[in-house]
Amino acid sequence: MSSRIGRLLSVQIFGESHGSSVGVTIDGLPAGLRLDMERLNAFVQRRAARSALATARREADIPRIQSGLWEEITTGQPLTALFENGDTHSSDYSFLPDRPRPGHADYPAIMRSLGNDDLRGSGHHSGRLTLPYVFAGGVAMQLLESQGIRIAAHVYQLGNGEADCIDWVNPDMDALFACHSRAVPTVNAAIGERMQQDILRARQEQDSVGGIVECVAVGVPAGLGSPFFEGAESVMANYLFSIPAVKAVEFGAGQTAAFMRGSAYNDPYAMQDGKVVTTRNNAGGLLGGITNGMPIIARAAFRPTPSISQEQPTVSLQTGTDTTLAVHGRHDPCVVVRAVPVVESAVALALAELWLERRATYPLSKRLENL
Amino acid sequence: MSSRIGRLLSVQIFGESHGSSVGVTIDGLPAGLRLDMERLNAFVQRRAARSALATARREADIPRIQSGLWEEITTGQPLTALFENGDTHSSDYSFLPDRPRPGHADYPAIMRSLGNDDLRGSGHHSGRLTLPYVFAGGVAMQLLESQGIRIAAHVYQLGNGEADCIDWVNPDMDALFACHSRAVPTVNAAIGERMQQDILRARQEQDSVGGIVECVAVGVPAGLGSPFFEGAESVMANYLFSIPAVKAVEFGAGQTAAFMRGSAYNDPYAMQDGKVVTTRNNAGGLLGGITNGMPIIARAAFRPTPSISQEQPTVSLQTGTDTTLAVHGRHDPCVVVRAVPVVESAVALALAELWLERRATYPLSKRLENL
Amino acid sequence: MSSRIGRLLSVQIFGESHGSSVGVTIDGLPAGLRLDMERLNAFVQRRAARSALATARREADIPRIQSGLWEEITTGQPLTALFENGDTHSSDYSFLPDRPRPGHADYPAIMRSLGNDDLRGSGHHSGRLTLPYVFAGGVAMQLLESQGIRIAAHVYQLGNGEADCIDWVNPDMDALFACHSRAVPTVNAAIGERMQQDILRARQEQDSVGGIVECVAVGVPAGLGSPFFEGAESVMANYLFSIPAVKAVEFGAGQTAAFMRGSAYNDPYAMQDGKVVTTRNNAGGLLGGITNGMPIIARAAFRPTPSISQEQPTVSLQTGTDTTLAVHGRHDPCVVVRAVPVVESAVALALAELWLERRATYPLSKRLENL
Amino acid sequence: MSSRIGRLLSVQIFGESHGSSVGVTIDGLPAGLRLDMERLNAFVQRRAARSALATARREADIPRIQSGLWEEITTGQPLTALFENGDTHSSDYSFLPDRPRPGHADYPAIMRSLGNDDLRGSGHHSGRLTLPYVFAGGVAMQLLESQGIRIAAHVYQLGNGEADCIDWVNPDMDALFACHSRAVPTVNAAIGERMQQDILRARQEQDSVGGIVECVAVGVPAGLGSPFFEGAESVMANYLFSIPAVKAVEFGAGQTAAFMRGSAYNDPYAMQDGKVVTTRNNAGGLLGGITNGMPIIARAAFRPTPSISQEQPTVSLQTGTDTTLAVHGRHDPCVVVRAVPVVESAVALALAELWLERRATYPLSKRLENL
Repeated sequence: MSSRIGRLLSVQIFGESHGSSVGVTIDGLPAGLRLDMERLNAFVQRRAARSALATARREADIPRIQSGLWEEITTGQPLTALFENGDTHSSDYSFLPDRPRPGHADYPAIMRSLGNDDLRGSGHHSGRLTLPYVFAGGVAMQLLESQGIRIAAHVYQLGNGEADCIDWVNPDMDALFACHSRAVPTVNAAIGERMQQDILRARQEQDSVGGIVECVAVGVPAGLGSPFFEGAESVMANYLFSIPAVKAVEFGAGQTAAFMRGSAYNDPYAMQDGKVVTTRNNAGGLLGGITNGMPIIARAAFRPTPSISQEQPTVSLQTGTDTTLAVHGRHDPCVVVRAVPVVESAVALALAELWLERRATYPLSKRLENL
Repeated sequence: MSSRIGRLLSVQIFGESHGSSVGVTIDGLPAGLRLDMERLNAFVQRRAARSALATARREADIPRIQSGLWEEITTGQPLTALFENGDTHSSDYSFLPDRPRPGHADYPAIMRSLGNDDLRGSGHHSGRLTLPYVFAGGVAMQLLESQGIRIAAHVYQLGNGEADCIDWVNPDMDALFACHSRAVPTVNAAIGERMQQDILRARQEQDSVGGIVECVAVGVPAGLGSPFFEGAESVMANYLFSIPAVKAVEFGAGQTAAFMRGSAYNDPYAMQDGKVVTTRNNAGGLLGGITNGMPIIARAAFRPTPSISQEQPTVSLQTGTDTTLAVHGRHDPCVVVRAVPVVESAVALALAELWLERRATYPLSKRLENL
Repeated sequence: MSSRIGRLLSVQIFGESHGSSVGVTIDGLPAGLRLDMERLNAFVQRRAARSALATARREADIPRIQSGLWEEITTGQPLTALFENGDTHSSDYSFLPDRPRPGHADYPAIMRSLGNDDLRGSGHHSGRLTLPYVFAGGVAMQLLESQGIRIAAHVYQLGNGEADCIDWVNPDMDALFACHSRAVPTVNAAIGERMQQDILRARQEQDSVGGIVECVAVGVPAGLGSPFFEGAESVMANYLFSIPAVKAVEFGAGQTAAFMRGSAYNDPYAMQDGKVVTTRNNAGGLLGGITNGMPIIARAAFRPTPSISQEQPTVSLQTGTDTTLAVHGRHDPCVVVRAVPVVESAVALALAELWLERRATYPLSKRLENL
Repeated sequence: MSSRIGRLLSVQIFGESHGSSVGVTIDGLPAGLRLDMERLNAFVQRRAARSALATARREADIPRIQSGLWEEITTGQPLTALFENGDTHSSDYSFLPDRPRPGHADYPAIMRSLGNDDLRGSGHHSGRLTLPYVFAGGVAMQLLESQGIRIAAHVYQLGNGEADCIDWVNPDMDALFACHSRAVPTVNAAIGERMQQDILRARQEQDSVGGIVECVAVGVPAGLGSPFFEGAESVMANYLFSIPAVKAVEFGAGQTAAFMRGSAYNDPYAMQDGKVVTTRNNAGGLLGGITNGMPIIARAAFRPTPSISQEQPTVSLQTGTDTTLAVHGRHDPCVVVRAVPVVESAVALALAELWLERRATYPLSKRLENL
């Protein structure tokens, strides 16, 4: 069961790069949610290849709703959307299944299916599958917005490592939303421009770069999640690591926390306007698997795009000998820019799952009077 | 459903720090696995508090098997083990539920349960729950060993950030197993001794430190996992983030990958003794959610222990005012050393799940002759 | 999550009667299964409306495969099939949402969704959804056939209660397969003809009839299933009761068992050609949740079609007063004939799930030599 | 994963008849539910062996709560209860694993585990496991009672087939509760006495009888459940068929519906005190997988107890030859009486699951004004 997730909000993606369509079925969505289709389409479009920084592949990327929506309101039945595949060039993949691309899922996919997997255009492993992923994320985001939760991501680091730092305690959400129109979405425009140069330089050198996306969610109430296996970190990481190319996930201070003293790391509590807050947010809004009401800060690190036109060492599976491969065709020198709405989608789907779980298990009585 | 995981190998932990017992039920284990109880107990003991580096709490930590095992062989029925709680000091927690400890799950747990959660000794949120976790991990490890898979972790970084680096392509498993007898389990003994000094210094200064644990799994066949939501990275991260105090998870080169070029990051394929290998292992044995047959390299970063005897700012939930708290009682200045078998358990449980999934979905025919 | 099932073989159906399409995604199918598309289409066609006994609605009912199949072999990725909706008459349903049809899901569906559900043509509650159900069942059946398991159902009782009895110990599978070409598929042709008269008489009298379908599965190995919640009876009943209109499910002697003495009910064991068999099959191949290697005998009882053109008492939800309703339009006077392949599909999907679970948990060693 | 159920309310039972204990973990229970332990114990005791009609085995059957309850209020963490096994006679089972008892799970269990299953006292397959089942059911029942839902079952048919009929539209719940103190709990006392004679006669004749239990749930709101796989019938049947010895499950008119005309079967709607009701209840409160607000009527048919002291034909698995077996020891001649609270538990657990699912997916807005 490769491509389904969710105990309450089930998300099943399907499709291959060179098949008829890619799509998604969302099951478990409450009825009566009005979807703003214009905003949903705009969100999906943010993932599209549209600039010099991205692959030249062009497709409509327009969802064809099959079910679950009636006059733009959810019916409480499975919501299915399809995206037709148009512009495919199967011939670009003639090196498969013989010579697996280094850094790609080709070889493991061949071993997993004993050669039965359709790897043309990377098949089900293609970045094209993030299209239905983002559609589902956009739906989850509108569900969360109806509950006062807002989510936005930006490119945090890329190439030279310079960081687009934001305030974790009081993040400027408007600035985050505004930056999405930039070529590289950073709050600090100058940093984004330098990142863009890094990407273009990598392309020129027939190479690719990775980077880190940071996502913020505000308005999340305290008390979502659980200790242990359904902890909010676990749930979010599950969605984030399912994005192709993610190799590290962290929350708040993240890895840096490993090098801090407890006295510096622990976020002190304080009362603010009658509300419990923390005066810093190293925890990224998450303590022991449960939200504490502060902004959620999640970061996902992406490895550089594996497909590069340089010649790389590989093997011939047919002859069992060493050989080389130069991957031609259309590939992003950096997936990080297009990944920004995918990361937002991962966080939105995880929070929607946690929010529905909270709804199901909301306490039947209060033991402390002044909560 | 806070404390259950596993689509094929269901692991349900239960218990509170100051209740009768903590325990675990493992369901979905194949019948006919002979468990070496001596080794299982020794594994569980590795987690125990036993040195100057750990809390003074002492308990037997001896599993009482309730079911699922007959003459040390699994029956194919639910395997339940209990660990009785003995040595508890509830009075140490009189500050709860009024004054939540900074960095702890107290406040979110109170909000989650509206005050109904039993937080004495941190209740179900206690590190004591890693005891049944490790028991389950030890069982999973013996299952995997029967299939030729071996797992070992070590402390990778702690305090000053010096790294206990190992060979990711050909890890020396014997050295890893041997290091578990050290006070701080590092392959490079001198690094471990310096880490020990860091821990003792932190304790002296009424403070705590975090650190990073790295886990290696060898013998894992290529083809385990799936693209997207049940990807091997997603599954492993789910278990790793369920360990209390983990704030970052990464595989292979991990975050560093974000700052590398594709030409340097991609692991080249080569034939070695008729087998496909990669000549470096930046991917940590995982490509696009699927194992590639190389050693799996996973790292989990732990924040410093939240309980420190220094005074910290907090709030009184009863009066709604700012106040302070100094947490006395018995607490590790660093959980990282005791966390080593817990990280191994997380990886073992995740791989057992993936291995069972592979068993269920093993291809019915081969499309490529020479696989 | 209304429309998904399966821990190992996930089946997600979607679509509404008057939407663009209905469809299904099957996830968890092993790679390398060659699907005979001609036989699959023929199986799906058995459900179609084609005779005087069924609704006049005509549609292509041709699956459009979106993913998961490459040159007719499963890839190990999600398999999605769509069936376009063509011939719809929304105007027939103008009485909704005001006047719910007695015996239909209208009123509960309205209460469930607070009016948001699209009930035109019965929406997601329509019998049209058994089309993707049967597609999934046909795929499961081919998976099982590759393992030597064969499944066939027939109409057991209808109208006057006369039963089409078969041998439960040695069922004549060829006779069962052959009977599928009859107007009413019974092994005893004369009984089927009398059933057909019952149906036509009901239609003439503006009424409808129910009936019972019996399904047989042979070649199922002993040892599939579990005691308790994932018992083979539980799993099969879950799929069978998900077929619209099923109100009773039983195995082997079923309800009759309640009136038998143990000495008459217990199936005695005997050796036959070196194999353990039972000399009768009151248990229907299922003992305590686990298959015993004998033919599986399952029956599902269908209530009469709720839509009848007679005037029936109902209420107006708008005015809150009593009123009446006569349901015109195209409706089967009896769903039982078309339900035969749906029942086979339910049994096939359940057995595929159990077979995959068996594969995952197959014992690692044998304790008794001569098993 | 043999013994776990529940997408929202996870119930994991464990234990073997002759092991240390049997028990259950309930995960997903909302915090803040006050459990009346006295009533819970009384409910559990209803299942106990206490009369001439039942086995002579005596045990305390007192739950030892391990976790999840604090001062009798649920904490929102896993609730675990153990029941110690005391009075066991392993020697009674010396015929296993050689000579499987006809009608028992012995042979399938041996095939499932290849001989590794501990079958002493029937092991995990024992009726003793209904003890934790009933504990979980009692907890679910108190959850439902807090929402105005009440559940009661009675023996409907036994032996000669005479039925203890009740009013399905307006069931007399007080009469149902009151009948639980009778030796055979029927609303019509005379019928129960005749049933008792049937049981005693069967025992005298070294035989056993089956029977049917009917369960009623009132106060269930309309709108719980879903079409298809998570339909209320499917969910309830899953729990009911997991009770050992159940071979048939039906709702409302059940199988009889198969022989009715639509005009007689369809339950007409009517307004009553401003509420939509049906004037008969052939549907048993369930239409197309969703509750309609009427009483839920479920029946489970039990086969006669398999263990009888008469000699029965069986085989020797060791020698592969035909032989016989007379099962001595302590066995109920009829499990149906003790099964009454087990059936109530199945219905309670199913409704708790559906109620939590309803809470999670409750519509976000209303489309029809006067609902």
